[in-house]
Amino acid sequence: MNVHWLNGYRPGHGLPRAFYTDPEIFAEEQARIFRNSWFFAGHSVELPKSGDYMTLDVGGAPVVVVRDRDGKVHAHHNVCRHRGSIICTKEKGKAARLVCPYHSWSYAHDGQLIGAPMMGEDFDKQAHGLKRAHAEEFDGLIFVNLSETPSPFDELRDHLSPILKSQGMAKAKIALIRDYELDVNWKIVVENNRECYHCEANHQGYVSVQYDSENDNPDLKDEIAERLGDCRIRWEKAGLDTARVNTSSNNTSEWFRANRTPVRKGMVTESPDGQLVCDVLMAGFTDPDMGTARANTNINFWCHANSDYAHTVRITPVSPTKTIVRGYWLVDENAVEGRDYDPEKIAAFHHEVMSEDWEICRRQWIGITSPGFEPGPYSPTKEANVDRYVRWYASQMTA
Amino acid sequence: MNVHWLNGYRPGHGLPRAFYTDPEIFAEEQARIFRNSWFFAGHSVELPKSGDYMTLDVGGAPVVVVRDRDGKVHAHHNVCRHRGSIICTKEKGKAARLVCPYHSWSYAHDGQLIGAPMMGEDFDKQAHGLKRAHAEEFDGLIFVNLSETPSPFDELRDHLSPILKSQGMAKAKIALIRDYELDVNWKIVVENNRECYHCEANHQGYVSVQYDSENDNPDLKDEIAERLGDCRIRWEKAGLDTARVNTSSNNTSEWFRANRTPVRKGMVTESPDGQLVCDVLMAGFTDPDMGTARANTNINFWCHANSDYAHTVRITPVSPTKTIVRGYWLVDENAVEGRDYDPEKIAAFHHEVMSEDWEICRRQWIGITSPGFEPGPYSPTKEANVDRYVRWYASQMTA
Amino acid sequence: MNVHWLNGYRPGHGLPRAFYTDPEIFAEEQARIFRNSWFFAGHSVELPKSGDYMTLDVGGAPVVVVRDRDGKVHAHHNVCRHRGSIICTKEKGKAARLVCPYHSWSYAHDGQLIGAPMMGEDFDKQAHGLKRAHAEEFDGLIFVNLSETPSPFDELRDHLSPILKSQGMAKAKIALIRDYELDVNWKIVVENNRECYHCEANHQGYVSVQYDSENDNPDLKDEIAERLGDCRIRWEKAGLDTARVNTSSNNTSEWFRANRTPVRKGMVTESPDGQLVCDVLMAGFTDPDMGTARANTNINFWCHANSDYAHTVRITPVSPTKTIVRGYWLVDENAVEGRDYDPEKIAAFHHEVMSEDWEICRRQWIGITSPGFEPGPYSPTKEANVDRYVRWYASQMTA
Ligand code: FES
Ligand code: FES
Ligand code: FES
Repeated sequence: MNVHWLNGYRPGHGLPRAFYTDPEIFAEEQARIFRNSWFFAGHSVELPKSGDYMTLDVGGAPVVVVRDRDGKVHAHHNVCRHRGSIICTKEKGKAARLVCPYHSWSYAHDGQLIGAPMMGEDFDKQAHGLKRAHAEEFDGLIFVNLSETPSPFDELRDHLSPILKSQGMAKAKIALIRDYELDVNWKIVVENNRECYHCEANHQGYVSVQYDSENDNPDLKDEIAERLGDCRIRWEKAGLDTARVNTSSNNTSEWFRANRTPVRKGMVTESPDGQLVCDVLMAGFTDPDMGTARANTNINFWCHANSDYAHTVRITPVSPTKTIVRGYWLVDENAVEGRDYDPEKIAAFHHEVMSEDWEICRRQWIGITSPGFEPGPYSPTKEANVDRYVRWYASQMTA
Repeated sequence: MNVHWLNGYRPGHGLPRAFYTDPEIFAEEQARIFRNSWFFAGHSVELPKSGDYMTLDVGGAPVVVVRDRDGKVHAHHNVCRHRGSIICTKEKGKAARLVCPYHSWSYAHDGQLIGAPMMGEDFDKQAHGLKRAHAEEFDGLIFVNLSETPSPFDELRDHLSPILKSQGMAKAKIALIRDYELDVNWKIVVENNRECYHCEANHQGYVSVQYDSENDNPDLKDEIAERLGDCRIRWEKAGLDTARVNTSSNNTSEWFRANRTPVRKGMVTESPDGQLVCDVLMAGFTDPDMGTARANTNINFWCHANSDYAHTVRITPVSPTKTIVRGYWLVDENAVEGRDYDPEKIAAFHHEVMSEDWEICRRQWIGITSPGFEPGPYSPTKEANVDRYVRWYASQMTA
Repeated sequence: MNVHWLNGYRPGHGLPRAFYTDPEIFAEEQARIFRNSWFFAGHSVELPKSGDYMTLDVGGAPVVVVRDRDGKVHAHHNVCRHRGSIICTKEKGKAARLVCPYHSWSYAHDGQLIGAPMMGEDFDKQAHGLKRAHAEEFDGLIFVNLSETPSPFDELRDHLSPILKSQGMAKAKIALIRDYELDVNWKIVVENNRECYHCEANHQGYVSVQYDSENDNPDLKDEIAERLGDCRIRWEKAGLDTARVNTSSNNTSEWFRANRTPVRKGMVTESPDGQLVCDVLMAGFTDPDMGTARANTNINFWCHANSDYAHTVRITPVSPTKTIVRGYWLVDENAVEGRDYDPEKIAAFHHEVMSEDWEICRRQWIGITSPGFEPGPYSPTKEANVDRYVRWYASQMTA
């Protein structure tokens, strides 16, 4: 590619402007990163039964994810091998066979071409099955990978599962899905998500519930230590993994991370006042004060799972200058809307944080795309994770 | 041009993705095809009198078509030779002279510059007439060609006229014009129009009136043969050309075709129930069961003319990803709206077919522009005309 | 740059099509002209006090102009040296310090970085002040220049000030600001502004008040001479500069000009009927018949200042095909809206002229972007200023 890192990029600093605007670089990202890595597709509970499917965009490619009769999840390019129509036309649906709406070629859940009328004697059905992607499912999350030689999935699952498996997302239901369409490059969104340097000036609500911005505050040193100690004891008793309990989100692995953080003393969940927003707890929890199970990947996923609800995010880059962020809010499968929870109240906390972040992103976008922009230095303490993310990104683009 | 057919295109298969999206290829198409071929501009009856003009886009060029005092039709670039303003600013109008609205340079119907105030002594009016295009008119249709050395028009007229001259479009009136703005490449629209492989799954209304999709149906073999026989006799008696009467639309010439098809037994026109939608027949017909005179070109035109109304289409490519399709519906000049016909009922049949096709096009577009798209094989029987069209297109682009 | 003037451009003729549409040429213009010249930013009276700021786009760069405690005006790139957020987020505001909304870095009015929390010991604040632009202010006008080595400002001020200083724009107030968003290249707008060849056919209102289009009219030769003589005497008495009093707007300098013209006999200002539209005169004028002080630059500014109101224009190119024109209307600081003037009536005259011009520009744009466009010759008399402007433009692009 025509990108010369050593000329434009200084480690410890932000990326040069072109990385946020150049269509060629965007095309490289879609190929090298989004179609070549484990992309968060959605939740297992969105496809409860055989034939249930969902469609999505992965690195610019329309993809269909479908559950077969044996409960296994498959992912395919949602593109007919005849003249290229998309096959599944809805975002979610159910189909015994995947039938193309143009000329009725039909495919099995595993992608094999079953029917193709009038194609003549020489036509080879075997050679015209759907182009397959890889799909993996664990703890209620579905990831897909369009690479023909995907990187091992184990490293991601083995790191996230100890933290997430206790959160009950596999036995949840979707309380709310909300799409945010942002006129900024996707990396602006991820970089913003990788630091809390900006929290104090921008996220009053978040800061009032979390300790992220207080790790350097001498006045709270004792409170935080006490809170961590208490939580570790209770959580260990409840069978949770306590090896990664802390109050920050420092990266612990190459391109993903997971840990568990307590909310502030006297609070139990991420809500405007720190109190429960759903009366039925997830995963059979009895103690509501289980902190927040956090996880993310550098590609397109993050998660904040509390005792009463879980919030996840799927990022879809659409163009150099457009990104769709889908927010999901999940509650326990036994919770009843109206009785146990109100979707708007479940979403309130993270919806506010995200709305504040989108305004930040919008303002940064104007400056970053300016001819006067020059990437500045990162705070060695407060932005270490952003620096780590950008170095990882650089390695992906030059590999 | 930077297109390497032999690498990307396999005859018998669809075109590679770039042909639907690449702005350079689109620019080549506009120059090689749309500004270098006979482009359907509109109907003679749109310009009944001297000075009547219409403006349109031909291959990205604003063009004006105007009828002069002797009844002859002229076509010009609708661009002032001074500082480039368009001259005729309305879609349709009337003008004794073509006067530029910017600085009032004025041109005759034949394009000669007549007035140009204050341009000084040395200014050569002769050298600054409107850039001319070629214009031809037959059987009520107007075609223009922006090439300086246009291909002979005779071959097109001589093939279409025997079928169309009997349809009365030269003595018709416009019942309705409707523009469809589609977010797809123009070739998607033409390819879709070249086969009825998709009809059964998508066009219930069309199929219930036409035999196109039944040519392989053994149950209807006898009915079709009988129907064709009966029609040939009656139509010959009525003076129609019966050399090209059949029930399919197989291509018969290089880049255009024309034939006549019967509608289904018991029906007389292309309407939802196969019965007349205009009480006054065109062209002095007395027998309403005259079938459908069909014609098309590979460039931008098709026509379905029945005994009571004619439907034509003009395709205008706007960008690689945008196409405007104009539908015209004509009735006999003596038919009176409200008494003899309702424009919406005249348009209902083809409006429904087109709406169904635009949805097909939209879905194919998403898949074709995907990185997972790979052009598939055509059905040797059902898509022979698409294959022929694509081969012709390839020849135009490599000539 | 990949532009070969000698091939495409013939002096005395218009510019070739690419100059109006090519994104590379547009990028060159932004760098060579708009970020390398004195750009009209706005009016002194928009920033009356210390800390008052306004933001604007200069050649694609977000810029903030702010008045400091000593009354001096500064201009900076409105882009944080940390991660590039814009700093001042409103179009107009007031700030004791310029504080970045992302991570609260704070800057003084002169651009120095004052605060940058948690950046570590090695961080050099001195090296991270705002990138500065040059700012100049005279007679109530503010100009900025993003070049590191700006051309001398004196030549512009020394030419315009003798005409404009008497007009009281430094002690005015804004009666109205109106933005016009045009889908044409910015040069179309400037070229249109450089000639009155088009006035007679397009600007009835303008022509009824001004003599511009009558300079060749033998019937008015005597009236104009008499009017000029009378005005010169009165204006000299009133202390105005009369060296540049005339009835045309012929260019008198490289890339800017200024002169004073009388309005038609019996009229005193640029209004639909030539009579006053504000009861309080500007600049302490007592005689309302002071003509129109006109000035412009080739970059982005023009001005028509009358005795009762002044009208100025700021042009901002947004893309090859999009231009924002901001119209300002100013009255004396002591005039009271509702009592002394109605903003709509103040604006009526030039709003009408501009609306007529935008329609001209729109029509020229369609023709100029057509493949059939060929630049034509300029009228040697009526379009001498356009020719001069285009030659200047060519010199800037090839320098
Ligand atoms: S495009 Fe799918 S069957 Fe033809
Ligand atoms: S542009 Fe047509 S007369 Fe000037
Ligand atoms: S971007 Fe301005 S302080 Fe960080």
